[in-house]
Amino acid sequence: MVSVPEPTITALGGGVGASKLLEGLVRVLPPERLTIVVNTGDDTVMFGLHISPDIDITLYTLAGMVNRQTGWGLGGDTFSCLEQLERMGEPSWFQLGDRDLATHLFRTRRIRAGRTLSEITEELRQRFGLGCRLLPMSDDPVPTKIVTDGGVLPFQEYLVKHRAEPRVKEVRFEGVERARPAPGVVDAIRESSAVVICPSNPLISIGPILAVKGVRAALQSTPARVIAVSPVVGGKSLKGPTDRMLRDLGLEVSALQVAKLYKDFLNVLVIDHADETIRSEIERMGVQVVVAQTIMHGAQEKVKLAQVVISILNEQAA
Amino acid sequence: MVSVPEPTITALGGGVGASKLLEGLVRVLPPERLTIVVNTGDDTVMFGLHISPDIDITLYTLAGMVNRQTGWGLGGDTFSCLEQLERMGEPSWFQLGDRDLATHLFRTRRIRAGRTLSEITEELRQRFGLGCRLLPMSDDPVPTKIVTDGGVLPFQEYLVKHRAEPRVKEVRFEGVERARPAPGVVDAIRESSAVVICPSNPLISIGPILAVKGVRAALQSTPARVIAVSPVVGGKSLKGPTDRMLRDLGLEVSALQVAKLYKDFLNVLVIDHADETIRSEIERMGVQVVVAQTIMHGAQEKVKLAQVVISILNEQAA
Repeated sequence: MVSVPEPTITALGGGVGASKLLEGLVRVLPPERLTIVVNTGDDTVMFGLHISPDIDITLYTLAGMVNRQTGWGLGGDTFSCLEQLERMGEPSWFQLGDRDLATHLFRTRRIRAGRTLSEITEELRQRFGLGCRLLPMSDDPVPTKIVTDGGVLPFQEYLVKHRAEPRVKEVRFEGVERARPAPGVVDAIRESSAVVICPSNPLISIGPILAVKGVRAALQSTPARVIAVSPVVGGKSLKGPTDRMLRDLGLEVSALQVAKLYKDFLNVLVIDHADETIRSEIERMGVQVVVAQTIMHGAQEKVKLAQVVISILNEQAA
Repeated sequence: MVSVPEPTITALGGGVGASKLLEGLVRVLPPERLTIVVNTGDDTVMFGLHISPDIDITLYTLAGMVNRQTGWGLGGDTFSCLEQLERMGEPSWFQLGDRDLATHLFRTRRIRAGRTLSEITEELRQRFGLGCRLLPMSDDPVPTKIVTDGGVLPFQEYLVKHRAEPRVKEVRFEGVERARPAPGVVDAIRESSAVVICPSNPLISIGPILAVKGVRAALQSTPARVIAVSPVVGGKSLKGPTDRMLRDLGLEVSALQVAKLYKDFLNVLVIDHADETIRSEIERMGVQVVVAQTIMHGAQEKVKLAQVVISILNEQAA
């Protein structure tokens, strides 16, 4: 029996890594106590369509509609439109599913009618039947650009078209100096019992959120416990090119490095059993360490990791 | 054996009615001798996508890819995206096929990159492998608005959403006073051996083309023979709401009425056998009348009607 009041959690995340932990969190917490702040640095305009990959992954995953093989897109989707685009000689590296397209059309129609990304995300959240709050990090465009050996690439081109292969020299969040946090983002960080930094790429998923004016300061000053789950386990990233990007930028590929990137606001880092050996090094930075199984394959492991996060809060409150 | 030089033809048309005659024309004439000027008054922006219904019908038909049941859209197309839009509570009255969407995405990407509709139409013509020239009537938007008992409706809403049921009080071509003919349109009318007005709705398919500055004047002054095929047969329209619209506007529903609408530039009107009785009435207006079978069901009838048009020119030249 939990005797403390149920906590409220604000989770920062982006993409597939985050969505796994979020799936666990919505099962162990009444969904209305969860606010998710999603990276929109990956957003792109393709064929005139406004695409928000990380918001869509979160929507599809929490609605139970995601493609389980890939972690993005809709399960059982078809690709007739994309195949036709390919036949017409159009760029077809971005996987536009036929049903997935409906989400992009929904969003684009409203963007063109002058609605904000926050308003549209709230509408989508309702249509997909999600009980938690879902906020884009900002209503202003902050396109992530990857400076590589071969030139500056928009993020989706780097990740999807070039399969994250070019060597990364720098990561830029274009226009971030003018971007304001979306309504509710800073308040959610300030007023929750805990902020959870999901196991997403710290450079290009969490990084853009932290770069939006006021967000990092809110994390530094919030009375909430700030708990991160390391996306790096045993020197490798759980998902995506995090390890390669860290290496390219001359950073260590370790949970310790993750702690360093978050050190100005981090209270607790959840690391995998595989990283137990570096536990004391992280603790020496003044960060509490919790060791758990952070690799999530099935629903059970997602719930278990979410329970670890909740138990940290309950310990705290007890 | 034809002893005269092969004629060059400029055809004005829009939609399904026109495409049938055009299918015939490309079979009896070397395609490079045919220029098609297409109505773009039906163009619309839907979900942020630029849609040119009449250009697409022409492309799909002449590429042999059209849905033969409906006369528009791609044969064998699927509707997964539209079904998903419907599930999301979005307007789904406009039939967006999955493969059809690729054409709209192709066009929208280029419109947003600052390309003109002419340039894009030329690219599409090449991708669809058409040998004839294909020109939009204008690169400037001239959206047709239908003033009805129930208010002013954008054309596609009147035609598709409301199934052409509201009573028409007036037809407006918005912005037509500022629209210039697309490059090549006026020259094609001036320099062809003949101009063919396809059996399309004279009010909302041919009407917008004629309303673009300089087009009607070019038709009046061209040395080319101007030959129209009546879209009205026996007091009914061959296709679509032409008859109802003529009636609503207080006009007669007859081939004679068609002659009257075009009388300032028309040389020859091709009417159906069913209308032979009004032949002399039309001739009294100074318009030559050719009687033929104008209802085209199969490929053979399309070719036959196209041959009738060509024979008018050959007679003339002989």
